[in-house]
Amino acid sequence: MITPVLIAAAVLVAAPALAQAGVDPAHDPAKTEVWTPVPATVATPLGKAPSDAIVLFDGKDVSAWESEQGGRVPWRVADGALTVVPGSKGIRTRQRFCDVQLHVEWRTPVETKGFEGQDRGNSGIFLQERYELQVLDSYNNSTYANGQAASLYKQAMPLVNASRAPGEWQAYDIIWKAPRFSPGGGLTSPARITVLHNGVLAQDDTVLAGKTEYIGAPSYAPHGCAPIYLQEHDSKVSYRNIWVREL
Amino acid sequence: MITPVLIAAAVLVAAPALAQAGVDPAHDPAKTEVWTPVPATVATPLGKAPSDAIVLFDGKDVSAWESEQGGRVPWRVADGALTVVPGSKGIRTRQRFCDVQLHVEWRTPVETKGFEGQDRGNSGIFLQERYELQVLDSYNNSTYANGQAASLYKQAMPLVNASRAPGEWQAYDIIWKAPRFSPGGGLTSPARITVLHNGVLAQDDTVLAGKTEYIGAPSYAPHGCAPIYLQEHDSKVSYRNIWVREL
Amino acid sequence: MITPVLIAAAVLVAAPALAQAGVDPAHDPAKTEVWTPVPATVATPLGKAPSDAIVLFDGKDVSAWESEQGGRVPWRVADGALTVVPGSKGIRTRQRFCDVQLHVEWRTPVETKGFEGQDRGNSGIFLQERYELQVLDSYNNSTYANGQAASLYKQAMPLVNASRAPGEWQAYDIIWKAPRFSPGGGLTSPARITVLHNGVLAQDDTVLAGKTEYIGAPSYAPHGCAPIYLQEHDSKVSYRNIWVREL
Amino acid sequence: MITPVLIAAAVLVAAPALAQAGVDPAHDPAKTEVWTPVPATVATPLGKAPSDAIVLFDGKDVSAWESEQGGRVPWRVADGALTVVPGSKGIRTRQRFCDVQLHVEWRTPVETKGFEGQDRGNSGIFLQERYELQVLDSYNNSTYANGQAASLYKQAMPLVNASRAPGEWQAYDIIWKAPRFSPGGGLTSPARITVLHNGVLAQDDTVLAGKTEYIGAPSYAPHGCAPIYLQEHDSKVSYRNIWVREL
Repeated sequence: MITPVLIAAAVLVAAPALAQAGVDPAHDPAKTEVWTPVPATVATPLGKAPSDAIVLFDGKDVSAWESEQGGRVPWRVADGALTVVPGSKGIRTRQRFCDVQLHVEWRTPVETKGFEGQDRGNSGIFLQERYELQVLDSYNNSTYANGQAASLYKQAMPLVNASRAPGEWQAYDIIWKAPRFSPGGGLTSPARITVLHNGVLAQDDTVLAGKTEYIGAPSYAPHGCAPIYLQEHDSKVSYRNIWVREL
Repeated sequence: MITPVLIAAAVLVAAPALAQAGVDPAHDPAKTEVWTPVPATVATPLGKAPSDAIVLFDGKDVSAWESEQGGRVPWRVADGALTVVPGSKGIRTRQRFCDVQLHVEWRTPVETKGFEGQDRGNSGIFLQERYELQVLDSYNNSTYANGQAASLYKQAMPLVNASRAPGEWQAYDIIWKAPRFSPGGGLTSPARITVLHNGVLAQDDTVLAGKTEYIGAPSYAPHGCAPIYLQEHDSKVSYRNIWVREL
Repeated sequence: MITPVLIAAAVLVAAPALAQAGVDPAHDPAKTEVWTPVPATVATPLGKAPSDAIVLFDGKDVSAWESEQGGRVPWRVADGALTVVPGSKGIRTRQRFCDVQLHVEWRTPVETKGFEGQDRGNSGIFLQERYELQVLDSYNNSTYANGQAASLYKQAMPLVNASRAPGEWQAYDIIWKAPRFSPGGGLTSPARITVLHNGVLAQDDTVLAGKTEYIGAPSYAPHGCAPIYLQEHDSKVSYRNIWVREL
Repeated sequence: MITPVLIAAAVLVAAPALAQAGVDPAHDPAKTEVWTPVPATVATPLGKAPSDAIVLFDGKDVSAWESEQGGRVPWRVADGALTVVPGSKGIRTRQRFCDVQLHVEWRTPVETKGFEGQDRGNSGIFLQERYELQVLDSYNNSTYANGQAASLYKQAMPLVNASRAPGEWQAYDIIWKAPRFSPGGGLTSPARITVLHNGVLAQDDTVLAGKTEYIGAPSYAPHGCAPIYLQEHDSKVSYRNIWVREL
């Protein structure tokens, strides 16, 4: 029979050795410290791209982009902004991306008179050239909820309307998880997106049902990494401070 | 036999009726518009809390908080910041929260001489009073990776070290999903967290293994909504612009 | 100073009290016992439906079903089996289901001469009338992999071909999670399915990309609970021992 | 202006070429057929292991196992069953496993007099030597719900009590997903389990909170693939027809 006294004695016998070695491993806080790998250092200057980001537009240089038809970017660069030229074409990055953190700042035109609903300040950010995060002037401008700013166009309305007024810069902070496909082309996991619109959670790990469609239901077709595409949609929407980090 | 010509004819026959009725439902873009509910409008003034947030600290008012022992907040309010008083106690919100978006700005002391590793600018943000997102001066300050700034303390190192220098304000944008428990107390889904540190993704839907522990392995015990807690850890860490939105 | 001896003494002092009170709560195994709720008792007779299942076909009674056109089941009941009548119509349950565990036994015709690929022993089990788990004679019968037995038709091939020979009874044990839609009709979580084919894992929490399509890409349209549908596809496929449990 | 007539004409121009080539690609069902890879063929003889399984016990051979102390299996093999010898030790597979489909048949002793609760027909199946799926005579035998047959011991009660009477063979069909850990040892995804008990869904993608504990809360410590372990718990529980398939 083992009595409490004998147990205590056994503990005492062990104690001196533990005192010498340092601490009882079961009570050693160092056991749960992890020292490697050391996360890479990233500088985060206010209002600029983090040091490890791929800068897609810094206010001047559009060399990361091309027209959706190939060739030079048909939009206007002035005053630190890249502005859609209505009637031209959309633009896409030369580089292809899969999972990314993407930061985009955008501004819709001050002049809104005569433009209503989808005709006011319309553009769009297409992840992997297929999945549209809507850009629209949704400040006192009614449209269908799954087509307003920060919606996944015709798939998911935003949690809130965090829009700023026309002429003010707005920001999207996007976490994008590309869809996965089996070797046979079957969908193994759908695309997912989280969006902060002007710092407010507007899309919370939203699942995409497929490629954005203007008409009919979205569906998936297998694809790989693909450009980020900015839409020309008849409005002089401006962009600035665009950067992306591969996840 | 139906020839292509006849098919085309059939389509043409149908066309006038469609023109009258509007459009073929299968080709009607309005079919995928969703007009209700209308997402709530949220104002997003620069550098301030969104209009729908619960402001926890605006630079002056600490009435949302109490000492972890109950009673008044034992920290110092000055110059728009709430600063830890070493040797006092931690503080917690009077209100309890579950799933939240949480924004916190924090600053570690300029004076770093003689303070190394975990002794430099240490504090912490505990979600639901149990799960610590580390606050630390990790600018040119080596410590274990799962204990540096933006780590889930002793559970998950950050993806990157996005720390700013001592004396500079830093920001966490947090998306927190509380753990779920069965009526019997079993874990049905673990807590998950996404963190932007100074705008850079530092935790990407990270799963928590349980309550933060200084020694030993984390584990879960069932609980409900609970306060947000800020740690007193011997350093004069300052906080400002703290707001939370329930998800 | 507290020495090990004194600590041990303190433990010993406490021991009698603990013996009286029961045990130290921190070391009490009863603390993690959960006594309620008590899971419902289910009888599981060999080869028959569990006692809590909704029996859809027991070998004789087809009253749980109707023709896909409404009206009586146009298939043949004989020898404890329900057999497709080629040229008739498919059948569906009168009751609608969402998340379910579904057990189905099926048998393809012994006579295979002259029938190849999709023409041999073809039928199908449609969850929620939309999502087809393929039934086919895939025993030494080549077809496209995402169209063979235990495939999610044209979406996901099975992990293995666990088919038995024509004339032998086969079994599917299915765990079905219905897709979820937002009030606006957006997809919030896709449908998922796990299938044991003759006891072997053939689909492992497979995600569905949408409604089964013969031509083109699958897509989702919002819907609620819906009947289970069995397909008439020109083959005298037989069914027996069909039961379902709502999850 | 493009009229419907002209559109139709354009379609007709294209039609002959399509007729020659076969079908309009947009309407070609062959586009969504996937012919490779061809899923491996697996024979599924009734009451026996699938042909691609690792047979752990076929009624005679215990060479896949060893004592938990190393050395030969201290249990009894007779009449096609492997029966626990009370007072001996548990046994574990020589091979290590991660994600698996596991089939186990088990039987508790007919003699139940004098044995109540956890003392009646107790054994257990430990995935990766750490996570216990309870084996117990839960037929008219009350115990804590998270300790009865088909529970994840002290973590998750089963959805139902599908127990058969003492002396009858019962079956578990298990789909096990091992937990994942980061290089630093953090938990990246918890273990998950699905269990059919006698064909009835008893655990539905249940998340594990950590290693099974008799006292206190479960927690995770990083580990790799590990043996399947069968517990000796003072009861003459028998096993037969044990097989496993790596996922």
